[in-house]
Amino acid sequence: MKIDFHPIGLIHTPYTKTEDMPIQPAGAAGVRGTVEVFEEYRAGLRDLDGFSHIILLYYFHGSHSFDLSVVPFMDSVPRGLFATRAPKRPNPIGLSVVQLDKIQDGVLYIQNVDILNGTPLLDIKPYVPEFDAPVEVRTGWLEKTKKTVSSRKSDDRFK
Amino acid sequence: MKIDFHPIGLIHTPYTKTEDMPIQPAGAAGVRGTVEVFEEYRAGLRDLDGFSHIILLYYFHGSHSFDLSVVPFMDSVPRGLFATRAPKRPNPIGLSVVQLDKIQDGVLYIQNVDILNGTPLLDIKPYVPEFDAPVEVRTGWLEKTKKTVSSRKSDDRFK
Repeated sequence: MKIDFHPIGLIHTPYTKTEDMPIQPAGAAGVRGTVEVFEEYRAGLRDLDGFSHIILLYYFHGSHSFDLSVVPFMDSVPRGLFATRAPKRPNPIGLSVVQLDKIQDGVLYIQNVDILNGTPLLDIKPYVPEFDAPVEVRTGWLEKTKKTVSSRKSDDRFK
Repeated sequence: MKIDFHPIGLIHTPYTKTEDMPIQPAGAAGVRGTVEVFEEYRAGLRDLDGFSHIILLYYFHGSHSFDLSVVPFMDSVPRGLFATRAPKRPNPIGLSVVQLDKIQDGVLYIQNVDILNGTPLLDIKPYVPEFDAPVEVRTGWLEKTKKTVSSRKSDDRFK
């Protein structure tokens, strides 16, 4: 089975190379970007401005291979790929929950952006804690280091 | 730009038709399912069992068209598609945060499953509240009805 997707927009951010980027929205507090939704899809944006946060699904367009074992930015030992958020994946789909400030002329003004400039947008979903945020959560190998995400940056390992 | 993805596994659940399904994991408390990860990707599951919750990205394989204005299950008036979680989307990618109970022989045993049986899996990511769960959130048109998600079921409108 082959699944064909196509961009519905483009994400514009201050990050033009994969190095020295924040590695999660939590590490990108206050960083602003825009999402340009292509004209034919803009009617689907109605009512979205009521939500303070949205889920962006996008295509890691720089990712053309993957390894099932990776040393993630947040650790120094190899981890199983699916236990990490590394961008090089069998289906390189990125997911970021970002703050939505306003929508104007089909452009979403967003904050807390950890995404490479020019990234193709695949989908937008409203973020709803009752759907998306379980309570009583364990986070495995990330327990020790996840609080440091805001001070960490990417390097060239997933180039 | 065309983006080609391919299934990395299959999701098995009690739901064999799109009607009468829970409409979010929050409406599927205790519902069990399994994720069968294809053999060539299983090495990537290492360390995942430390996480209590995972993000499944999957292909809404029954979805072959979309409308930019939809009446969602949680409302009675039309909303912009991207302000809803309706399955028929330009790129029909589903997202569910589910509870991970255990992993055995490449099979993930999961709970709180709101997914159709036989759904092709695209990606697995560890759920990390520090990355994925912002605080101080507004949820637009869903404010009034979101608490009722656990008692609502799907119907045939997105068939």
